[in-house]
Amino acid sequence: MQQTMQLGMVGLGRMGANMVRRLMAAGHECVVHDVSDEAVDQMAAEGATPAHSLEELVAALEPPRNIWVMIPAAYVGSTVEQLAPLLSPDDTIIDGGNSWYRHDVDRSEALRDRQLHYLDVGTSGGIHGLERGYCLMIGGDTDAVDRLSPIFSTLAPGVDAAERTPGREGDPTPAEQGWLHCGPSGAGHFVKMVHNGIEYGLMQAYAEGFNVLAKANIGAVDHAADAETAPLDDAKYYQYDIDLSSVSEVWRRGSVITSWLLDLTAEAYLADPRLEEYAGHVSDSGEGRWTLHAAIDEGVPVPALSAALYARFESRGRADDANKVLSAMRAGFGGHHERKDSTR
Amino acid sequence: MQQTMQLGMVGLGRMGANMVRRLMAAGHECVVHDVSDEAVDQMAAEGATPAHSLEELVAALEPPRNIWVMIPAAYVGSTVEQLAPLLSPDDTIIDGGNSWYRHDVDRSEALRDRQLHYLDVGTSGGIHGLERGYCLMIGGDTDAVDRLSPIFSTLAPGVDAAERTPGREGDPTPAEQGWLHCGPSGAGHFVKMVHNGIEYGLMQAYAEGFNVLAKANIGAVDHAADAETAPLDDAKYYQYDIDLSSVSEVWRRGSVITSWLLDLTAEAYLADPRLEEYAGHVSDSGEGRWTLHAAIDEGVPVPALSAALYARFESRGRADDANKVLSAMRAGFGGHHERKDSTR
Amino acid sequence: MQQTMQLGMVGLGRMGANMVRRLMAAGHECVVHDVSDEAVDQMAAEGATPAHSLEELVAALEPPRNIWVMIPAAYVGSTVEQLAPLLSPDDTIIDGGNSWYRHDVDRSEALRDRQLHYLDVGTSGGIHGLERGYCLMIGGDTDAVDRLSPIFSTLAPGVDAAERTPGREGDPTPAEQGWLHCGPSGAGHFVKMVHNGIEYGLMQAYAEGFNVLAKANIGAVDHAADAETAPLDDAKYYQYDIDLSSVSEVWRRGSVITSWLLDLTAEAYLADPRLEEYAGHVSDSGEGRWTLHAAIDEGVPVPALSAALYARFESRGRADDANKVLSAMRAGFGGHHERKDSTR
Amino acid sequence: MQQTMQLGMVGLGRMGANMVRRLMAAGHECVVHDVSDEAVDQMAAEGATPAHSLEELVAALEPPRNIWVMIPAAYVGSTVEQLAPLLSPDDTIIDGGNSWYRHDVDRSEALRDRQLHYLDVGTSGGIHGLERGYCLMIGGDTDAVDRLSPIFSTLAPGVDAAERTPGREGDPTPAEQGWLHCGPSGAGHFVKMVHNGIEYGLMQAYAEGFNVLAKANIGAVDHAADAETAPLDDAKYYQYDIDLSSVSEVWRRGSVITSWLLDLTAEAYLADPRLEEYAGHVSDSGEGRWTLHAAIDEGVPVPALSAALYARFESRGRADDANKVLSAMRAGFGGHHERKDSTR
Repeated sequence: MQQTMQLGMVGLGRMGANMVRRLMAAGHECVVHDVSDEAVDQMAAEGATPAHSLEELVAALEPPRNIWVMIPAAYVGSTVEQLAPLLSPDDTIIDGGNSWYRHDVDRSEALRDRQLHYLDVGTSGGIHGLERGYCLMIGGDTDAVDRLSPIFSTLAPGVDAAERTPGREGDPTPAEQGWLHCGPSGAGHFVKMVHNGIEYGLMQAYAEGFNVLAKANIGAVDHAADAETAPLDDAKYYQYDIDLSSVSEVWRRGSVITSWLLDLTAEAYLADPRLEEYAGHVSDSGEGRWTLHAAIDEGVPVPALSAALYARFESRGRADDANKVLSAMRAGFGGHHERKDSTR
Repeated sequence: MQQTMQLGMVGLGRMGANMVRRLMAAGHECVVHDVSDEAVDQMAAEGATPAHSLEELVAALEPPRNIWVMIPAAYVGSTVEQLAPLLSPDDTIIDGGNSWYRHDVDRSEALRDRQLHYLDVGTSGGIHGLERGYCLMIGGDTDAVDRLSPIFSTLAPGVDAAERTPGREGDPTPAEQGWLHCGPSGAGHFVKMVHNGIEYGLMQAYAEGFNVLAKANIGAVDHAADAETAPLDDAKYYQYDIDLSSVSEVWRRGSVITSWLLDLTAEAYLADPRLEEYAGHVSDSGEGRWTLHAAIDEGVPVPALSAALYARFESRGRADDANKVLSAMRAGFGGHHERKDSTR
Repeated sequence: MQQTMQLGMVGLGRMGANMVRRLMAAGHECVVHDVSDEAVDQMAAEGATPAHSLEELVAALEPPRNIWVMIPAAYVGSTVEQLAPLLSPDDTIIDGGNSWYRHDVDRSEALRDRQLHYLDVGTSGGIHGLERGYCLMIGGDTDAVDRLSPIFSTLAPGVDAAERTPGREGDPTPAEQGWLHCGPSGAGHFVKMVHNGIEYGLMQAYAEGFNVLAKANIGAVDHAADAETAPLDDAKYYQYDIDLSSVSEVWRRGSVITSWLLDLTAEAYLADPRLEEYAGHVSDSGEGRWTLHAAIDEGVPVPALSAALYARFESRGRADDANKVLSAMRAGFGGHHERKDSTR
Repeated sequence: MQQTMQLGMVGLGRMGANMVRRLMAAGHECVVHDVSDEAVDQMAAEGATPAHSLEELVAALEPPRNIWVMIPAAYVGSTVEQLAPLLSPDDTIIDGGNSWYRHDVDRSEALRDRQLHYLDVGTSGGIHGLERGYCLMIGGDTDAVDRLSPIFSTLAPGVDAAERTPGREGDPTPAEQGWLHCGPSGAGHFVKMVHNGIEYGLMQAYAEGFNVLAKANIGAVDHAADAETAPLDDAKYYQYDIDLSSVSEVWRRGSVITSWLLDLTAEAYLADPRLEEYAGHVSDSGEGRWTLHAAIDEGVPVPALSAALYARFESRGRADDANKVLSAMRAGFGGHHERKDSTR
């Protein structure tokens, strides 16, 4: 029998709202707050206790309180600062968003002076977490982690979400259930940061591969034969019209590269075989950058993860100033004039 | 009811032998040959018809014959050349190995003159294929593909190996079962080549990420403060001892980066938490290189896939001559003397 | 006293015409041909012997003939095929263009059967070669190289073009004069190919650096604070408006990164401080690709040279299909909607 | 007539001592200090005023004092903290070392409260600066820059060190002489940081290219034909024994890739044709890392500069943990056993 408990949730966006739903479905009691009253009312209609201010939220929770903050990283600092003075010793703030792990180190120090606990919880799972469960990477002191373990157990997917690793026996560890106490403050977001760094790299690998397939018919295309164009020597070997939707599907079974990201790719190609819905300007939201910062500080080579991040920068036109330098140099030494047509 | 048929198999290594087992388990009749008599005898003991020469193999098969060649890429050409004169019009040779797709284009042309069919079948699944099934990517003429479809259906994992992609309904397509006719000759190995290119990229992304985690405690290590060493500004933020085995396990459930490669990583870390069994000299077996060749010919940027291949080259000391140039230049302009200790 | 001789030149574009001028200025006799009669007439007006067909060219030269072909790589093969039947044993064809070195290997074999010599000469120097001289990298048999050495000596810049390397004494070697017999057929274009691969890498390094300088004021720009945008933590450290023209100038004297490419960059920034004349769609003309092909075949890691080539591909929109895959995946797991505005 | 002035120099290593020599040769008066008394005595013997403590140094200088600190980055902070209390309003501290530009921003703020000036001066030129002059990139307030301009003019190479850029006329700007006021505090080290980032990229481009040349004879080497080894398809095209010393020399004249770094490379290859003196463990000293940090914060793709830094990390064994993950995965899916021999 799973133990139930009370939790405050600040932030009812895509992630926060679904987490509340998953927790309530398991019998936990949730007190919820958001800057949007509408979002609060919606969750109240689904069974949560509404709180229209942080003060109301704190008042509605029994000490020792546990308050999960699930908001954009840029607002976590100010929210924690508003929240801390309202709390009592032994209360716990959980940052479940995508904060930079260094902020956790700093914030936890400040809160420790107030005898408050602080947990940083990297949360993966996206919009599918409600049914699929969330993978939780946790940093902070052991007491607080232990206290929150019923919440983590509910949010995590549970051991049945994947076959047990050969060699693992007996009672599943928390890691096998999908949540892990990674170390002291910051460790959770550190591991989550690297998770997202890897995610960028995996996505980029698939994206590059599909691009190679997409252009496998380049030999069938007319090709300029001037000094500004690299000659294609072997046109006869580039005559394939490959059905990307079918390829993404066939790789889902039995191949070495099966993955959830591939599943999503197959879904996308089925719905839109040429992905015409997308422009290909790809955002990056912090963790990819921080992973590189950490790698560089550590002296760890991360060429693939870097390639992934830089590809996103380039997709948003951030290489333009560099490319102009190249064109200017080429004009300088070779009298090369830029071709004005792109995509060749 | 699945239709059964007769197949010749040349090459009874890791892959070929298991494929024969999977085929025989489904009722197909296999005539088998290998350069090793021992391997032939072993499969005969398991129910296959032994052939101790290509001639015997051909004689034991009823026309139109179907002969699957499952041997290292370097030997496919000569084997096909030996085999072709023994065959009759309408017979089919299947290359299930890791050939360069351009060789398929050339070979199929030569065999077409003899009225022989040629299929190139990229096969993924590794040593787990016997139970898990093989993902098959096929190039060649439609008649031959149709004729061999019972074989492909048996070798492939079948639709139940993964949840159906939302939006796919009715009878599963071959792609959903795990095999796909990708296009004319070479298309199968082309898609498999890109599959392996992606595989290299995925592996590299995980490997880099785990390396960042492995060195997250660098701030706890003493650090030289000389002009030859990059200073670490923020030692307090690099004090984590992260349990890589637990991290690889926790990511297997609910995270965005679940995959079969991650499952294998978790298995490896469980067995050997610091992977001390390995030296880290990583081979590459052709497809990763060919993927880059194709991308370059097509004008497709593949920075992450390239990073993955180059990391393998470097792991085998292939950057040493370049690094010496760097050291020589540094000595030249800065009087920098190389540090003789490595791994800093 | 420099020996003079007779040379046929086929191709009077930017490069060929200036080479003829430099040769004639040193007293060599040039017989010239081009597909453009106008170009032929122009050079005739400057003192060359005009030839309005290959036949005329061959007729105007005394055996053993030396014919330099200076045309786009795509046309060299057919030109050599037209030329060969017109020639006599011991004549020499020189390909001074940017051919793939493998073609040299193949062509020289074919010509050897006709007792013709074939030299491949990689030529660097661009439009400045007329005054600055050309750096020549030569492959082929020693007899032909020796015979042509007066031509090479004239075209090359000569030893005074740079300070002698400390340790080099006595008569300058050909290498010190700016021309080198690199090895058998193909060796010249092989070395030139790598030269251009390096050139791409050098250009890219400068271009990236200037881009970092160009955006050093990003902290002064308003920054969105949503989940789709990576937060900038330290805006106060990115408040610089750096004068790129002055920086490119200051680095020209006394710095470690002085180079001719930097000289050209300084010239470009002086003329157009924001390089607004350029769109930044950067062509690549073969050698950069071939360098990567060679490196991959050799098992040599070339991450920086690859980055340079891929940056050019990306500048021409060749990553778009990959970027759409990234956007589709992000929509799939996170419900992220693409931002439609670029350059952020 | 160049104006002369008095300067204090703290730090008499390779760089500091030569700068003092260059300044004294031009008539400036130098008061010098170092943690090594021997170094101080040596410079005193060459004409400088010795100071065996910071207090002595300050006492020997007339206000407003100008004190140049030329020591490893790790010690600048503590030195400035010791120095500041000894100084009077309007005195100036110059950090000529390789500090992180952010420290300049912070230090200059602290010193401004004491009415002290602070200039950050990125200094390029290495051990050759004594004769060649130093390229100086300067950040800080204009008053202090103006006051120090006689010093900068002497240290810089002067306009004659390179041909003037076409289009530049009249009195040479400071940038043309080799020194530049780049902007407010930190701007000097920011520009120097990027300079070194570029330097890493340039070095890497040459190093990779020479590596491709060094292995151009791989086709002449015996090649294993097993499933663990990528096949070499075209051995006949890799039969070149290229003389790297001659190639580095020939490129010095007339080619597009002439540079000072190439000059140094030619010198190194002449002295040691296979660079056997070097092990190829390449240090990195901060600026390359900081350049990447800045680029990432700015959202600027720097794939070539990153490749250069990561190559250095790898040269020191920092990819080993990642490579072991790759080997473990390969064992997991393919039963591949690592080859124990390296450098293949």
